[in-house]
Amino acid sequence: MSNSNQHVPAIVIGRLPLYLRALTQLSSEGRRVTSSQELSEKLGFSSAQIRKDLSYFGEFGKQGTGYEIEFLEKSLREILKVHHVWDMVLVGAGDLGHALANYGGFETRGFSIVAIFDANPIKIGTRLGDWRVQPMEEIRVTLRDKKIQVAIIAVPAAAAQTVADELVEGGVRAILNYAPTTLSVPPRVKVYHIDPVAGLQSMTYYL
Amino acid sequence: MSNSNQHVPAIVIGRLPLYLRALTQLSSEGRRVTSSQELSEKLGFSSAQIRKDLSYFGEFGKQGTGYEIEFLEKSLREILKVHHVWDMVLVGAGDLGHALANYGGFETRGFSIVAIFDANPIKIGTRLGDWRVQPMEEIRVTLRDKKIQVAIIAVPAAAAQTVADELVEGGVRAILNYAPTTLSVPPRVKVYHIDPVAGLQSMTYYL
Repeated sequence: MSNSNQHVPAIVIGRLPLYLRALTQLSSEGRRVTSSQELSEKLGFSSAQIRKDLSYFGEFGKQGTGYEIEFLEKSLREILKVHHVWDMVLVGAGDLGHALANYGGFETRGFSIVAIFDANPIKIGTRLGDWRVQPMEEIRVTLRDKKIQVAIIAVPAAAAQTVADELVEGGVRAILNYAPTTLSVPPRVKVYHIDPVAGLQSMTYYL
Repeated sequence: MSNSNQHVPAIVIGRLPLYLRALTQLSSEGRRVTSSQELSEKLGFSSAQIRKDLSYFGEFGKQGTGYEIEFLEKSLREILKVHHVWDMVLVGAGDLGHALANYGGFETRGFSIVAIFDANPIKIGTRLGDWRVQPMEEIRVTLRDKKIQVAIIAVPAAAAQTVADELVEGGVRAILNYAPTTLSVPPRVKVYHIDPVAGLQSMTYYL
C-alpha cells in the first residue's frame, strides 16, 4: 500500500473519499463484498476508472470475487490518513458556522472541531454547540498549542483572505473554504473550495 | 460549439464551472487574455488537461496568443446553460438554509432562489431574507406553476430522501444535496452532493 514511489494524480486522490463514503454506506448496510461495477453505478465513474484508481495503492480486488469492503475501507482510511481523528478549528460563527458546528458527520469520518473563532464582538463568548466562540486574537495560540493542521473558513468573502493568512501563519496546512472567493496561500497549504454554484452549473449542462 | 455529436465525460463537465469561475475572476481584475498555463496554476489541473477539456467544445485558443477571456467566459456560460438565470427552490430553513438564503453568489452565476420550504411548523411563515418560509404541502404546486427544475436540499439526513422524492415528483431535475446521505433518484435526475468531509479527506492525504 506504499505510495511513496509513485506520484498519484490529485484527481485520483479527490475520488478516494467518494469511494470510502460509498464503502462505508455499503458496510453500514451489512454488506461484505462489492465490485467496481457496483461502485460505478453508485458513483457515476466507470468501473475501469475505479479499478485504475485503486491500483495505484495495491491489489485490492480479486478477479471474479470483487473487493472485500472492510479491508478496502480500512485501507482507504489509512491512505487518506483518516484512520485517526484530526483536530480542526472553525472560523466563522454565523449561520454557516452554526450549521457546521451542529453537523453530525465529522467525527466518524476523521475530523473533530476543537475550537470556534469569530471576529464579531457580539458572537465572541456565546455558546455554539459544545464550544464557546473565541476571539480571533486567540487563534494563533490555539493553533500552535494544539498543533492544528486543519481548518474550516466560514466567514464572508471580504474577510476570508485575512483569516487564511492567520491560519497559515499558525501552521494550518489544509483549509476547507466556504467563502465565495479564491484564497492565496503558499504551495505547501492545500485549499478545498466548497462552491455550491460550481455544483449547480455542472448539472445544468444536462438540462 | 455544438456538443450534440460527441459525448463529453461527466468529469470534464465538472471542471467547466471551475474554468468559468477562474475566468470570471480574471475578467473582474480587468484582464483580457489568459493561457492554459495560467489557468493551470490557478486551478491545479495540468495545462494539457485544460486544453483537452476545452477542445471538446471548439477552438478557443490560438497557439501563442492564448484564450480571449470574455469570449471563453461567454462560451462556457452557454455550454453550461447559465447564460440565463435558473429559478430554484431551497428546502430547509435551518442554519444552513439561512446561510444559503443570504449567500450573495447565486444570481450573478446563473441561479435565483424563488421559494423556501420547511416542514417545521415553527419555521413556516417566518421571514428569511426576501422570502416567507412556506410549508412543504405547497411545494408541488410551486414547482409545477413555476416550472422549477433546480433545487437545494438543506434538511437533516433523515428527511432528505422524502424531500428528494417530492422534488422529483414535482419535476425537478437537478438537486444540490447538502444532507449527509446518498439520495436515490431516477436516472434523469442529477444530484450533486456537497460533502465537506470528502473535501477534508482529499487534503489530509497530503499531510
